[in-house]
Amino acid sequence: MTTELYGIAASDGIAIAKTYRLESPSLEFDRNTIDDPALEIERFQTAIAVSSKELELIKEQAETQIGPKEAAIFGAHLMVLSDPELIGPITEKIETDRVNAETALHEVSEMFMNIFASMDNDYMKERAADIKDVRNRVLAHLLGVKFPNPGLISEKVILLAEDLTPSDTVQFNPEFIQGFLTEIGGRTSHSAILARTLEIPAVVGVKKLMESLADETLLIIDGIEGKIIADPTGEQIESYKKRKEEYEHQKTVLAGLKDAPSVSSDGSKVELAANIGSPKDVKSALENGAEAIGLFRTEFLYMGRDSFPTEEQQYEIYSEVLKAMGTKPTVVRTLDIGGDKELSYLDLPKELNPFLGLRAIRLCLEMPDMFRTQLRALLRSSVHGNLKIMFPMIATLDEFRQAKQLLLEEQEKLAAENIAFNKDIEVGIMVEIPSTAVMADLFAKEVDFFSIGTNDLIQYTMAADRMNENVSHLYQPFNPAILRMVKMVIDAAHKEGKWAGMCGEMAGEEMAVPILLGLGLDEFSMSASSILKTRSMIASLSKAEMENHTDTILALATAEDVKNYVAQLMDK
Amino acid sequence: MTTELYGIAASDGIAIAKTYRLESPSLEFDRNTIDDPALEIERFQTAIAVSSKELELIKEQAETQIGPKEAAIFGAHLMVLSDPELIGPITEKIETDRVNAETALHEVSEMFMNIFASMDNDYMKERAADIKDVRNRVLAHLLGVKFPNPGLISEKVILLAEDLTPSDTVQFNPEFIQGFLTEIGGRTSHSAILARTLEIPAVVGVKKLMESLADETLLIIDGIEGKIIADPTGEQIESYKKRKEEYEHQKTVLAGLKDAPSVSSDGSKVELAANIGSPKDVKSALENGAEAIGLFRTEFLYMGRDSFPTEEQQYEIYSEVLKAMGTKPTVVRTLDIGGDKELSYLDLPKELNPFLGLRAIRLCLEMPDMFRTQLRALLRSSVHGNLKIMFPMIATLDEFRQAKQLLLEEQEKLAAENIAFNKDIEVGIMVEIPSTAVMADLFAKEVDFFSIGTNDLIQYTMAADRMNENVSHLYQPFNPAILRMVKMVIDAAHKEGKWAGMCGEMAGEEMAVPILLGLGLDEFSMSASSILKTRSMIASLSKAEMENHTDTILALATAEDVKNYVAQLMDK
Repeated sequence: MTTELYGIAASDGIAIAKTYRLESPSLEFDRNTIDDPALEIERFQTAIAVSSKELELIKEQAETQIGPKEAAIFGAHLMVLSDPELIGPITEKIETDRVNAETALHEVSEMFMNIFASMDNDYMKERAADIKDVRNRVLAHLLGVKFPNPGLISEKVILLAEDLTPSDTVQFNPEFIQGFLTEIGGRTSHSAILARTLEIPAVVGVKKLMESLADETLLIIDGIEGKIIADPTGEQIESYKKRKEEYEHQKTVLAGLKDAPSVSSDGSKVELAANIGSPKDVKSALENGAEAIGLFRTEFLYMGRDSFPTEEQQYEIYSEVLKAMGTKPTVVRTLDIGGDKELSYLDLPKELNPFLGLRAIRLCLEMPDMFRTQLRALLRSSVHGNLKIMFPMIATLDEFRQAKQLLLEEQEKLAAENIAFNKDIEVGIMVEIPSTAVMADLFAKEVDFFSIGTNDLIQYTMAADRMNENVSHLYQPFNPAILRMVKMVIDAAHKEGKWAGMCGEMAGEEMAVPILLGLGLDEFSMSASSILKTRSMIASLSKAEMENHTDTILALATAEDVKNYVAQLMDK
Repeated sequence: MTTELYGIAASDGIAIAKTYRLESPSLEFDRNTIDDPALEIERFQTAIAVSSKELELIKEQAETQIGPKEAAIFGAHLMVLSDPELIGPITEKIETDRVNAETALHEVSEMFMNIFASMDNDYMKERAADIKDVRNRVLAHLLGVKFPNPGLISEKVILLAEDLTPSDTVQFNPEFIQGFLTEIGGRTSHSAILARTLEIPAVVGVKKLMESLADETLLIIDGIEGKIIADPTGEQIESYKKRKEEYEHQKTVLAGLKDAPSVSSDGSKVELAANIGSPKDVKSALENGAEAIGLFRTEFLYMGRDSFPTEEQQYEIYSEVLKAMGTKPTVVRTLDIGGDKELSYLDLPKELNPFLGLRAIRLCLEMPDMFRTQLRALLRSSVHGNLKIMFPMIATLDEFRQAKQLLLEEQEKLAAENIAFNKDIEVGIMVEIPSTAVMADLFAKEVDFFSIGTNDLIQYTMAADRMNENVSHLYQPFNPAILRMVKMVIDAAHKEGKWAGMCGEMAGEEMAVPILLGLGLDEFSMSASSILKTRSMIASLSKAEMENHTDTILALATAEDVKNYVAQLMDK
């Protein structure tokens, strides 16, 4: 029977495919005594062999699709599988205790995990986690239940999950993953952003998703409307196939704008840039007509590892991006860790309000050695392209001056060592804390550019955690207070002959673009998939006309008033 | 040997007295078999009798000093002590199992506690907590160790504690508690605020306090400098006795200003008001020359209870304060719960960033029935004095309009029921969220007054949790961004003929007062103990001169620059 579900439209597009539930299977088993230990050992060794093969395949795929560093974890898993100190005692236990393989595997691995986990050493703790992963995989094969391997999916499916972890998403192959649905998350969650980067349709925040949809259910998902149709009728399939075609057609039309400049109907030029998270996003950014990278988040370089990336490793990644971008500007944001983003190898203090705590530049200034390594890597890579450096979470001029000072010191050291770097790198800041927006006039005298990070700026200005659904009604991009702050920042930049960009989600929002154009924003940085649509929209807008509306908009009382006003303008 | 410790100066004054460590004693014991059960039962009954007497005394003291409601908890403890269903099985166990009283007490009470605690019923869970408190008290007497009863201290002491809970502090008798020191907390922690209310010197955030100072150590504490001298020399004692006298003398001089108006040297009048937390603080407010209550926090009415206070209970408390204040204005803030303030009987969602979550007006608008009860109680009490109602944590005009609408509806209902209330109550808001400061011009058209809550405004504007010591360097009252926001709010109010006050800690800070006077702040609300000093300071300041400095101050770049500028001004 056809049923419909709704969620938050997180990434445009339409997909029609069968579901693939990404979930941990139940690994419950009974403790049995067995009659024939030899047979049981054989069963165990078969499960080991199948698991090995599977892991080798995943490792290979990850190496080619993502990179050898990310694939290393599967190498570690393979080593566990062939470790005689683990495998030996299991077969022994089957023989002497005459228990089934599940029991022997579970008890022996549990013992090792406890030993490792109890050690006060992060490396050993991760080994415990490796054993657990491998144990679960082998157990699943013994029990004949499906163990989810998103990296091994080789047919076109729509993924379903409670939530997606970064380690799930690094395995995604967009050739097969046609779209995904999650129960948790909003439009700005990491998985939603990823979907837009990969340009696959996604609906997130779908209530009761996992209890509603079984595996291999035929689905239509509409990432534009946030709609899901399960077991659709033939008519519906036809209708959505048509819509999918229209959508693809419109995409082709937009693709014609790929190399066009971003100019308003009255001839004002702006820059449309892409937000990226790793070198592999550059391709999609360029294909989507990005004129620049407005935000290269460097966190992902530090994640999924067991120690800080070296200067050399960072240098390579930055250089790769800069080379690919050529003369186009590339704004690299220095490490923004803390808050909701943790590193397994960095013991950060537990905080009552992590979003108001030690994160981003605050942490970097507390850990100058780590920060200097990143700055050196950035400076060295600067010879390969058009690098601009951006510091996140700047709240005071002191912080900017300290960070800039560290950069100058690293420049001096490199010069003394005769290592080449670009001496004219622009150094700017994210404006995402209210104090900095209010003080933008003074910051503008010292920074080379501003990039407004609306996700955080809204959250702090409204005192509403953007991840907390209890107060999501207060997370208001269109609150006039936010628009006034944006104006303060842009005006301050222009007064000092600097440029102002925006790299929050807002820069790509249909309703926001006309306002931002009127406010004089110079650079709009967004998900690559939004660039062409935005370019087409800007071409249809008159900047002079939008400027005329600015004072009226900023004098409105509520977010609702602003949205109504803009909607009326656009309807004309 | 004389040693010195330092902490955060939390409340002015000097105290010289012996230490009294407020800490839970070790209640460890051995399980022994005994020969003479009758003797053991007698020992147990003596411990019960001593505990009963003690509890009766505490209850009596709490009843007279704090009030019968707060004392009720000790009545509950007394009932536990005389409960035959608990006491019977213990004596029985001593007899039949021939174990020592400690063991019997522990095992029987543990059984009852487990039964109660496992019930899904808050009332029964609290009974489990009562049993535990009583069990510990009796156990302490059996073991002959000191059980801390801050309410029973009857000699002059300086209290030492890791941290102070509200249930400790309700027992404080300022006649004996000469001052206190805590290891945890900052200048704006609840215990620091309490110290200023009680006008006893306090130093908080003293590192390694509890491991450094033994019980009954002679101490000098200097709450002005944040200094502690243990085992002082005779010379030091003499010197500090002199300073104490000077301090008391200055206090007497200030006391002469009690009924004086608050006027600057060039004749501008401002209002100096007190922040209070309960009716018993009114006396100290008036004695310290408060011209108004600028902030009556109503949370305490809702705390230390097992259900919401009724309309009648609230009406009585509000009326008591209003009557005591007579014609003087009394600004009552509606319930500000959530964030770091919880209610045992209200199941609030656990939030990742509670300071950016569902609290204060946000929660009240979600629970309109609870909110309406408070509004009705306030309206009814308005006939007894000069009430002004203030909503906390307003982020949007929508919220203010919704809250105001609920108030209007309750007014209409009361009118229909022929219940008297003042029809011209001023209704204002706390300005403690950046969006509201930035939108103050539009708010000023709809509200009757503003009161700037700097504690939260600073925390959100700087994105720095004021309780988190990792980012305490970013909690900057003197950051020009904060001062600019304060100016926006004051200017907006004056443009619409409204008044603007401040009820954060900043309003009473020596360095802030000159700036705030220059910015045109109308009302300064602070700890009662700061009022006279502030009045004396304002009398020495020229408002016109401070106005002339305002533009220069607001154009400074950092908090440090502002403090240096003001310090130079004041030095002249």
